Amino acid sequence: MRYEELTIEGRNAVLEAFRSGKTIDKLFILDGCQDGPIRTILRESKKQDTIVNFVKKERLDQISETGKHQGVIAYAAAYEYGTVEDMLDAARQKGEDPFLILLDNIEDPHNLGSILRTANQAGAHGIIIPKRRAVGLTAVVAKASAGAINYTPVAKVTNLVQTMEQLKEQGLWFVCGDMEGETMYSLNLTGPIGLVIGNEGSGVGRLVKETCDLKASIPMFGDIDSLNASVAAGILSYEIVRQRLHQK
Amino acid sequence: MRYEELTIEGRNAVLEAFRSGKTIDKLFILDGCQDGPIRTILRESKKQDTIVNFVKKERLDQISETGKHQGVIAYAAAYEYGTVEDMLDAARQKGEDPFLILLDNIEDPHNLGSILRTANQAGAHGIIIPKRRAVGLTAVVAKASAGAINYTPVAKVTNLVQTMEQLKEQGLWFVCGDMEGETMYSLNLTGPIGLVIGNEGSGVGRLVKETCDLKASIPMFGDIDSLNASVAAGILSYEIVRQRLHQK
Repeated sequence: MRYEELTIEGRNAVLEAFRSGKTIDKLFILDGCQDGPIRTILRESKKQDTIVNFVKKERLDQISETGKHQGVIAYAAAYEYGTVEDMLDAARQKGEDPFLILLDNIEDPHNLGSILRTANQAGAHGIIIPKRRAVGLTAVVAKASAGAINYTPVAKVTNLVQTMEQLKEQGLWFVCGDMEGETMYSLNLTGPIGLVIGNEGSGVGRLVKETCDLKASIPMFGDIDSLNASVAAGILSYEIVRQRLHQK
Repeated sequence: MRYEELTIEGRNAVLEAFRSGKTIDKLFILDGCQDGPIRTILRESKKQDTIVNFVKKERLDQISETGKHQGVIAYAAAYEYGTVEDMLDAARQKGEDPFLILLDNIEDPHNLGSILRTANQAGAHGIIIPKRRAVGLTAVVAKASAGAINYTPVAKVTNLVQTMEQLKEQGLWFVCGDMEGETMYSLNLTGPIGLVIGNEGSGVGRLVKETCDLKASIPMFGDIDSLNASVAAGILSYEIVRQRLHQK
């Protein structure tokens, strides 16, 4: 695992990266470029469901580190992503009920890193993030995770709601942090569970919230709106830990 | 309250700031400068127990915003500090047991801001920080606090241990977050309480730890060393909240 984000430039290098199975977080292609190699790269990017940005030459020149981008630049993930199946396997192997943390568009890399750290310590089996809009596994995330990125897998999925539906079929329950929900202390948070944490500003999205079985609120006595997203994730995760410990 | 940190330059302006009762976080004085006005400023700074740095002319020129520092520059607090007495008064007025959070040298302004936010929401009556080494109430802290800095008072004290001893005489108990302590769920954290959170790297200092009545640990199942300091503060604060709620 490396700490740097990887910029891959040029047609062959980018195509090779796709074919070797490297996770490409973002692809930049010269607007209007439609020759054979570029079309092949676009086909590969479609398989991976990579986000593609068509940009002007000036933008590519600006991003380029080598000056030889040939109309295509890819950002590779600094860390490898895991899969949801791996997380469920890990839980099974430990003889534990699955405990997953789903982040509905956390944008701040410090928050993602800090939540990774919490997930690791709280014994969660992994973190699931959506492919679009959310922050990826960058060097800042790695640093803020204090090493947890090396132990706790992060899976990127195309559609959070779809993944939740699939996991429900495998017996998971979903609870989201929501200020209008019931006080977390009065809910039963034991069993196979997915904890959903919303975006820093807008909270949990409507569709995701509707897919949740439970809405848990943290009691708040203050004058302001909310808690920091990674602090809220910590408090909710440890309420799950407390209930799991007391169940035994 | 203002969002900017204030740089005050020149002999008269700095002396005036001290005499008006403004909190000066740091004082920079030209090394070797010993005339009357500078001696008066140093006398005032001693009364406030301000941190004084004797520096070379080049450093002062660098810090100076006006270019007219006359050998003295002061950094004033962006926000006014509160007092421990105010916090106890606030608890009394609300008919609540005091709940204070003591930070033993938190260095990251984002952590201080985030803990202020948590303190506000958890119903703590204030935060106590030591005068030396710890981060002060800067603009970054204000932003990370999401407005909580306007509601939850922060007191700066010369000696954390001394303040704890005085508060013990007023009936407070102290619990620190400590990985070698007893699991927080098994401790009685109700009643008038001070929660001590240690430095990001080195934890709670030896003397402060010895002054604590209880050492509480957050159960950790992970591969890494610790939690983010503001997340740990959040989890411990809300265990206090949970026990207070269930006591009623």
